[in-house]
Amino acid sequence: MEAKLTLVGAGPGDGELITLKGIRALEKADVVLYDELASNALLDFAPVHAMKIYVGKKAGETSFSQDEINGLIVRLARKKGHVVRLKGGDPFVFGRGHEEMQYARDYGIEVEVVPGVSSCIAVPASMEIPVTRRGVSESFWVITGTTQDGTLSDDLRLAVQSKATVVVLMGLSKLNEICELYKHFGRGHLPMAVIQNGTRADEKSVIGQVWEMPELVREHGIRTPAIMIMGEVVALHPSYAYEYLQHAGISC
Amino acid sequence: MEAKLTLVGAGPGDGELITLKGIRALEKADVVLYDELASNALLDFAPVHAMKIYVGKKAGETSFSQDEINGLIVRLARKKGHVVRLKGGDPFVFGRGHEEMQYARDYGIEVEVVPGVSSCIAVPASMEIPVTRRGVSESFWVITGTTQDGTLSDDLRLAVQSKATVVVLMGLSKLNEICELYKHFGRGHLPMAVIQNGTRADEKSVIGQVWEMPELVREHGIRTPAIMIMGEVVALHPSYAYEYLQHAGISC
Repeated sequence: MEAKLTLVGAGPGDGELITLKGIRALEKADVVLYDELASNALLDFAPVHAMKIYVGKKAGETSFSQDEINGLIVRLARKKGHVVRLKGGDPFVFGRGHEEMQYARDYGIEVEVVPGVSSCIAVPASMEIPVTRRGVSESFWVITGTTQDGTLSDDLRLAVQSKATVVVLMGLSKLNEICELYKHFGRGHLPMAVIQNGTRADEKSVIGQVWEMPELVREHGIRTPAIMIMGEVVALHPSYAYEYLQHAGISC
Repeated sequence: MEAKLTLVGAGPGDGELITLKGIRALEKADVVLYDELASNALLDFAPVHAMKIYVGKKAGETSFSQDEINGLIVRLARKKGHVVRLKGGDPFVFGRGHEEMQYARDYGIEVEVVPGVSSCIAVPASMEIPVTRRGVSESFWVITGTTQDGTLSDDLRLAVQSKATVVVLMGLSKLNEICELYKHFGRGHLPMAVIQNGTRADEKSVIGQVWEMPELVREHGIRTPAIMIMGEVVALHPSYAYEYLQHAGISC
């Protein structure tokens, strides 16, 4: 028996957005450690005999600490063999996948990484909003809304002044602060969308402009996990103009 | 017969990094229009009777213009039914996928978008470099090196001053200019990697610091398609310190 860890990106939510390589890793799993974000249907790719352990968290409520997860990976790889760590989106985008990889490797365990479809691109795409578009946006900047010390990332202060499409993950609790920052730099009228459970059947979203977004999000009851996208590309959404007029109280 | 277009992200090169949803679209294809970047093995998922047409370009040499591709999509969807447009990486990241979607829809053709694993994350990951890492990088900024008018993107001027991990796609011809820009802002010693054919069997890469990269790339014969990644996360690569000392002429 060979101790091995495979970090697999499960994709943004839709169970069919896992890669073929991810499925093949699951098919050879002895243990699957999975997050909240992964679709539960993915677990069916693992053999019936494989242990399946939920180690995710729900809106900040942790079931296992990161140290416990690291410890589980090493113990179970040694005891059972092939551990597949199934993580929402891509394992290297704000997922602490790299920490898990290094930890396991420090204990002499072989590690493989299988990238996934990241929410930062696929969730806007599920609303048909491209993060880049020739003539509209030459770049996109993906930022976490939840920094280690709980404050707004300094990167965001620069991002609101750039021409990049800005995507914020895990930032809904900072929505007001973020919108104020845009307004402070005179960009309150930038198109913006907030999307909850993107690519899932229960996807919910609002689209409009930065200045009105805190109210729209409250009105529509958008909750975590949600991502925000700010930039002119949002105006490419077919309903943008219509929704915008409607939000502004103009009937059409 | 129903005219339909499905834009499918083929992933970064490794043929197993396509999604299950992408495979299911290919299995129902009547026509596949594919790019250079997609692994040719992916075409085997399409039925034997399906037309398979290469519409990509090799290092700037175009076989079909974008107008011709748009025209092909509409004509073939009407004549044959389900057209799958297989694009390298993700269709909405510098892929003109959104333009193709809008064009087809303007002609009344139903369109679906299947996101893919984007090279901007997966290619650094294939070298085990995470675009984000707690305590090292809170964001990543993805920029095209090839703008519409051929100049360096203004976004890059701001990016070199940010703390974001910067990923440049399609920018190898601008390598000198980009490295000069970093040096101009006093960041010539930032860790940097350049990766050709990332995730493929013929992957080739160099790792070091910004100031020495033009020479290293020349020495190692790195060519397009290549991506660049600049940021402290590059120093997480196990061989970074070793390679850096070696490049600096210090034996260890």
